[in-house]
Amino acid sequence: MRVAVVHGPNLRLLGRREPEVYGHTTLEEIEHRLHALGRELSVEVESFQSNSEGALIDFVESAASRVDGFVVNGGALTHTSIALRDCLVGVDLPFVEVHLSNTAARERFRRRSYLSSVAGGVVYGFGPQSYLLGLRGLVALVEKNG
Amino acid sequence: MRVAVVHGPNLRLLGRREPEVYGHTTLEEIEHRLHALGRELSVEVESFQSNSEGALIDFVESAASRVDGFVVNGGALTHTSIALRDCLVGVDLPFVEVHLSNTAARERFRRRSYLSSVAGGVVYGFGPQSYLLGLRGLVALVEKNG
Amino acid sequence: MRVAVVHGPNLRLLGRREPEVYGHTTLEEIEHRLHALGRELSVEVESFQSNSEGALIDFVESAASRVDGFVVNGGALTHTSIALRDCLVGVDLPFVEVHLSNTAARERFRRRSYLSSVAGGVVYGFGPQSYLLGLRGLVALVEKNG
Amino acid sequence: MRVAVVHGPNLRLLGRREPEVYGHTTLEEIEHRLHALGRELSVEVESFQSNSEGALIDFVESAASRVDGFVVNGGALTHTSIALRDCLVGVDLPFVEVHLSNTAARERFRRRSYLSSVAGGVVYGFGPQSYLLGLRGLVALVEKNG
Amino acid sequence: MRVAVVHGPNLRLLGRREPEVYGHTTLEEIEHRLHALGRELSVEVESFQSNSEGALIDFVESAASRVDGFVVNGGALTHTSIALRDCLVGVDLPFVEVHLSNTAARERFRRRSYLSSVAGGVVYGFGPQSYLLGLRGLVALVEKNG
Amino acid sequence: MRVAVVHGPNLRLLGRREPEVYGHTTLEEIEHRLHALGRELSVEVESFQSNSEGALIDFVESAASRVDGFVVNGGALTHTSIALRDCLVGVDLPFVEVHLSNTAARERFRRRSYLSSVAGGVVYGFGPQSYLLGLRGLVALVEKNG
Amino acid sequence: MRVAVVHGPNLRLLGRREPEVYGHTTLEEIEHRLHALGRELSVEVESFQSNSEGALIDFVESAASRVDGFVVNGGALTHTSIALRDCLVGVDLPFVEVHLSNTAARERFRRRSYLSSVAGGVVYGFGPQSYLLGLRGLVALVEKNG
Amino acid sequence: MRVAVVHGPNLRLLGRREPEVYGHTTLEEIEHRLHALGRELSVEVESFQSNSEGALIDFVESAASRVDGFVVNGGALTHTSIALRDCLVGVDLPFVEVHLSNTAARERFRRRSYLSSVAGGVVYGFGPQSYLLGLRGLVALVEKNG
Amino acid sequence: MRVAVVHGPNLRLLGRREPEVYGHTTLEEIEHRLHALGRELSVEVESFQSNSEGALIDFVESAASRVDGFVVNGGALTHTSIALRDCLVGVDLPFVEVHLSNTAARERFRRRSYLSSVAGGVVYGFGPQSYLLGLRGLVALVEKNG
Amino acid sequence: MRVAVVHGPNLRLLGRREPEVYGHTTLEEIEHRLHALGRELSVEVESFQSNSEGALIDFVESAASRVDGFVVNGGALTHTSIALRDCLVGVDLPFVEVHLSNTAARERFRRRSYLSSVAGGVVYGFGPQSYLLGLRGLVALVEKNG
Amino acid sequence: MRVAVVHGPNLRLLGRREPEVYGHTTLEEIEHRLHALGRELSVEVESFQSNSEGALIDFVESAASRVDGFVVNGGALTHTSIALRDCLVGVDLPFVEVHLSNTAARERFRRRSYLSSVAGGVVYGFGPQSYLLGLRGLVALVEKNG
Amino acid sequence: MRVAVVHGPNLRLLGRREPEVYGHTTLEEIEHRLHALGRELSVEVESFQSNSEGALIDFVESAASRVDGFVVNGGALTHTSIALRDCLVGVDLPFVEVHLSNTAARERFRRRSYLSSVAGGVVYGFGPQSYLLGLRGLVALVEKNG
Repeated sequence: MRVAVVHGPNLRLLGRREPEVYGHTTLEEIEHRLHALGRELSVEVESFQSNSEGALIDFVESAASRVDGFVVNGGALTHTSIALRDCLVGVDLPFVEVHLSNTAARERFRRRSYLSSVAGGVVYGFGPQSYLLGLRGLVALVEKNG
Repeated sequence: MRVAVVHGPNLRLLGRREPEVYGHTTLEEIEHRLHALGRELSVEVESFQSNSEGALIDFVESAASRVDGFVVNGGALTHTSIALRDCLVGVDLPFVEVHLSNTAARERFRRRSYLSSVAGGVVYGFGPQSYLLGLRGLVALVEKNG
Repeated sequence: MRVAVVHGPNLRLLGRREPEVYGHTTLEEIEHRLHALGRELSVEVESFQSNSEGALIDFVESAASRVDGFVVNGGALTHTSIALRDCLVGVDLPFVEVHLSNTAARERFRRRSYLSSVAGGVVYGFGPQSYLLGLRGLVALVEKNG
Repeated sequence: MRVAVVHGPNLRLLGRREPEVYGHTTLEEIEHRLHALGRELSVEVESFQSNSEGALIDFVESAASRVDGFVVNGGALTHTSIALRDCLVGVDLPFVEVHLSNTAARERFRRRSYLSSVAGGVVYGFGPQSYLLGLRGLVALVEKNG
Repeated sequence: MRVAVVHGPNLRLLGRREPEVYGHTTLEEIEHRLHALGRELSVEVESFQSNSEGALIDFVESAASRVDGFVVNGGALTHTSIALRDCLVGVDLPFVEVHLSNTAARERFRRRSYLSSVAGGVVYGFGPQSYLLGLRGLVALVEKNG
Repeated sequence: MRVAVVHGPNLRLLGRREPEVYGHTTLEEIEHRLHALGRELSVEVESFQSNSEGALIDFVESAASRVDGFVVNGGALTHTSIALRDCLVGVDLPFVEVHLSNTAARERFRRRSYLSSVAGGVVYGFGPQSYLLGLRGLVALVEKNG
Repeated sequence: MRVAVVHGPNLRLLGRREPEVYGHTTLEEIEHRLHALGRELSVEVESFQSNSEGALIDFVESAASRVDGFVVNGGALTHTSIALRDCLVGVDLPFVEVHLSNTAARERFRRRSYLSSVAGGVVYGFGPQSYLLGLRGLVALVEKNG
Repeated sequence: MRVAVVHGPNLRLLGRREPEVYGHTTLEEIEHRLHALGRELSVEVESFQSNSEGALIDFVESAASRVDGFVVNGGALTHTSIALRDCLVGVDLPFVEVHLSNTAARERFRRRSYLSSVAGGVVYGFGPQSYLLGLRGLVALVEKNG
Repeated sequence: MRVAVVHGPNLRLLGRREPEVYGHTTLEEIEHRLHALGRELSVEVESFQSNSEGALIDFVESAASRVDGFVVNGGALTHTSIALRDCLVGVDLPFVEVHLSNTAARERFRRRSYLSSVAGGVVYGFGPQSYLLGLRGLVALVEKNG
Repeated sequence: MRVAVVHGPNLRLLGRREPEVYGHTTLEEIEHRLHALGRELSVEVESFQSNSEGALIDFVESAASRVDGFVVNGGALTHTSIALRDCLVGVDLPFVEVHLSNTAARERFRRRSYLSSVAGGVVYGFGPQSYLLGLRGLVALVEKNG
Repeated sequence: MRVAVVHGPNLRLLGRREPEVYGHTTLEEIEHRLHALGRELSVEVESFQSNSEGALIDFVESAASRVDGFVVNGGALTHTSIALRDCLVGVDLPFVEVHLSNTAARERFRRRSYLSSVAGGVVYGFGPQSYLLGLRGLVALVEKNG
Repeated sequence: MRVAVVHGPNLRLLGRREPEVYGHTTLEEIEHRLHALGRELSVEVESFQSNSEGALIDFVESAASRVDGFVVNGGALTHTSIALRDCLVGVDLPFVEVHLSNTAARERFRRRSYLSSVAGGVVYGFGPQSYLLGLRGLVALVEKNG
């Protein structure tokens, strides 16, 4: 099984950006833990970060032919991008939506997600652990469907 | 570590009720898998189901003195019960909100959760797997705080 | 054919409670007329009243195995209980929603019914007659499906 | 007792129009069953169908002097015509609102009825049976007032 | 100067319909007083009543070539008919909107008027006097423009 | 009969202020025409203008003992002052609400009037003529009640 | 192939009515161009205009047996008539919604169309050209289905 | 005079639960102070706490025959229970709504109270003092009516 | 301790104004009872009434240096004056909001209070008794803080 | 005449993506048909697709100096991009908005278009035919203005 | 050039009032800095503070004949006073709206400004610096127009 | 001190684009004036324009290590980009939001700014002068914090 992890805008700032909200773990550390879990679960993990909606969509379009599903942290695009939603629906693969913070406990405009209603599952609020739970969940979804 | 799993109204019907939404797994099977995972993670798991908001609150109040956190599937009360929310906040223990179905993809009135903004983390849409991911997430939360 | 009539909160007060809204007929008299009509239509009628959402759900769950459908006056829970709705959907039997008063002519918060959109039919505004029309309608629904 | 049954726009299409919503019974068959029930209940039944709001109002105005109440299926005008509502209030006779389909389970714009809050009673969702229950209910209302 | 007075649905019922709202004056008496005032102001007054939106629009279209303005009591169509509004704008003559009752003190749905924002002036709440004030106002508007 | 005309904020600017909205007539000219009409109708007219809500309320309170009703152009306070509304209701005399401009054709925030639903009648959009029609309407109201 | 073009209220005023919005072309000229295009595309075109919702529905009901689809300019009824929508759905033929003006750039109440979501396609904003594009589109729809 | 004090869900947690919101006083201490004030005012005070809506309604129904009014702290049910409201209206005795915290300064969903508009009076924000003021207020209400 | 009681617009009309809403007690009588209670509680009471928002703010600003808190009946300004709210917050003294009538049971626009969320406590619906309970509550607040 | 066709995000997926919504035609085939129609109408057609809002705006800015108008399928950006709207308004050339699917019949969030109110015309719901009708409409608009 | 600076309610409290929001600078110090900047820019500065909407309007009306523009900090009236807006529009001089605090980051009700849409420019969030930037901005506006 | 000025989408069109809204000054001229003011205030100014949200975020991320704050004209992204907001918050430097036009006087969708509530200050409506006032304001903010 092969899985792509997609990181939206500003996630490169992790560890530096608002640590009281997002914690002190960097994106590199999260990636490291994802690959370790991937090895444990016998799943190949690749990942991609961009601040550009267009580049994220390009990535999903092209990765679709080589992966079995996506773990997606859309960052702020979660709340604004119908195009990212359409892309994930369009490639017709299961995906799991994850967030580090508890978006339900933050600003009102973070409560709307264009991804949730088309996601296979949703995990948020656990900090870096959200990615790991999301990866586990995605693997379960792919195996159930496969 | 000791954890209580709380099942709200109608979850006794699992496996029989709307299987196209909730799947064919029964509550007993979920309990079985939760206990198995509990043993794997060295966590004692107890659980409680009731169709009555009052009984659920009574349970949370009394269990609070013997557990380290809750995994809560509030069922329909998720969307209507401020009292259950107040209770979980009142006992001042971490809890994880879980749902079997993808509530974001269902009726509009299922999109409001009184629990999410005070939960430690949220997992939904993975079917019975939601409980297992929720238990893993809760254990991580308790360990981080402990 | 066997039918259960479910009475929600405060219906025990009938005849005493706000008679300008609900009339002077007591719940006992309504029951009496329902049984008489049941005999006329060759339908066994049982009934249950409770002020507790949980007890009502418990009743519906257990009665589901012995009846062919429900006549439900949810009282105030009509407007607030998603759990009761889920239960009635979950047991997968036809039910008819009835109200004594014309809820459309009362407070704004009584206009939303969580039951209507999943009911087989709806009857309201006729006073005690609503129950009788509802029973006739349920019998027709059961016969059409049977 | 004499009762007028009023059918709003498009009801002439019954049996042909969206049978998955409205069933296969034609308006003629409904009329037939209404007259049969009328005879059973010793009520004279007349009826009127028009696609024009103005013609329906003209009918209600003129019929008001010879009938004791109305059974009204306003069709789509239910949701848009304040004039029809005003007319039914203006002639000061009891009326019952009926619908074949369960309007609460359809498009959002069908949930608002300008008639309900001034109707003597409301019946919907039972298919052609709605008319028969509505006629029974109207007879009960007229008898209670008479 | 020549003026047409347009009466919308249900105004033929005046004097009989909800006298606590609309008073006891009949449409004939209002017409009589309008003609008397017309003579006083040297204005020819014609009038038209219909329960049909289409007939009212037909009338406005055809009367437009022979009158200098309209006094319009749209009745319930005031709140629902964009077509009547478009017609009055389309014929490009001044018109005054009048109502017998104080629509601002009644049901919420009577507060929206599709006519007000394109009317030359608005008068309501004075009972039959609204028509007379409306006629005086229209004459002033026509004279100012003429 | 004695009538007080109340002018709210900014009406002293009339003739200078936004003449494309309010016209070129000054408040003095309007007063002049009101007194002339008062003499024609055998009504004593007094008037008061203030930019202060408190002063307007003080005036209404004190004038209430010597007049039979009010013609009120609340200016911008129409849309914001519940206190002015309460005062006019409190003194328990009929009043007519008038506006020079067609408030229904202007900014959205001018569409809400706290006065309309408690006014005896409303006249707007006729420019200075609104005051004269309002005075006629008030006289009719007082005479009908008197 | 045979097509009916349906013109709603006020379209008889075209060329005279608000030319800055609707242009100077008359309904006759539009009809002329539609017939010319019909001949080019080998399609028989008939048409009907009425200011009455009821008459338009009567026409659609009766034309349905002899045409393959409709081009509909509902005029103001587009925004208010659920009955016209129901009729077009009821006769179960493809139809195209057209408007001369760009309704999205006009008053807010013109943005809701009861027809769009059930139309085969929608064309607006091109003036008389909207009808011609609509006819081309309808022909393509009928051919695709046929 | 005899008065019942009703405590809704979670109030047993008082003193432990969110002391920054609810203070450190326990329910026992509040009861103690209520009885002391009752003796001062010559009023017998009984009280009841439950986490269950149904049990609270059962209590109100049964206590109604032996008390002259209620002091009600509905807790979270204040914002969600129409059934509790209906019950308090149904038994037709004066009641006073009290809250420890200032609900107007908390989450948006705590601003709606189903009890306020049918209460004899409302007191909130004073901590335990709210109960004492509420008891004084209720006594005044009962004496005024008595 | 010294307390200022602030009466907003129209309260001078008490006893005369809408007695079915506000009762027959005059402001003088309320003042009398407040001073009597003040003596009982060893609190000096001064008071101020104005119909002008500006004068009320001037008073609060100047009284702030000599009193320990305020009892405020803002009248209609409660619902519209952010300036009064800002003033009461700005002087940084505890205040209690009181109303004679049950504002929750009246017009919708009376449900919003700009004062409640910054008040120390709120009392309404008890008629003149609201002031007395409010004074008791304020004294308790001042003593707790002092 | 020269025209640019602009394709927004995800349109490269056409033919593969949700064929039940978007059909089986690929973007290449649509381009082919557009060029064929361009030749028939003597119009040069160029086109551009990007998943990036910024790249689309860059394209419109630079193409503006060499084309006479745009046919724009903004894809999901239609519903979210004010920047694309501003760009199309900024270059001051006519453009036509097209969509393959009937956006009015899909999710609620697809009903808002930032482009429609500034477009010269709008065509949607006809599948690939929408582009061809849009091109015809644009040519007519350019010719009328030229 | 001559400029008037207008300070609305509660600004006399500056330096004392909520210093965490408004800072420690007093109104006198702000005035001092405004006059210094005025001298630097060769602009005469006068100023006026009042807690009364009416007095502020009186001031603007009378100052209008001697100044070239206004710098306005409406305080809380910014959010509630249409009369102040109307006055500033009525005198037909440029004005700049300023606020000390960042009103966009505070309570929801502070986000609506009746002044912004008719102001020449808006400056907020810079503390006392807002006034100085506002004065510079106003001078630039007056010079551009002059 | 070093400051970066960020220009969002379409600002390269300045001088050409909608000059009645944005004026005739080009972006180059604004840059020129900003650098001149920078020299006057001893501030180094760099700037960046892009039509791509992703490129703007990339720029802010990388510039954050070399500047003391930002002047941001987000263009249309102001109203839609939560990602740009998150980025500016994430780099934890003061920034000032500026707009050329008075966004409060334009389309409704331009009234929401995702930047304002996290900006150090906001300036809009002064045309190119907005940038200069914004730069002055930013310098004051940096100096106060520094």
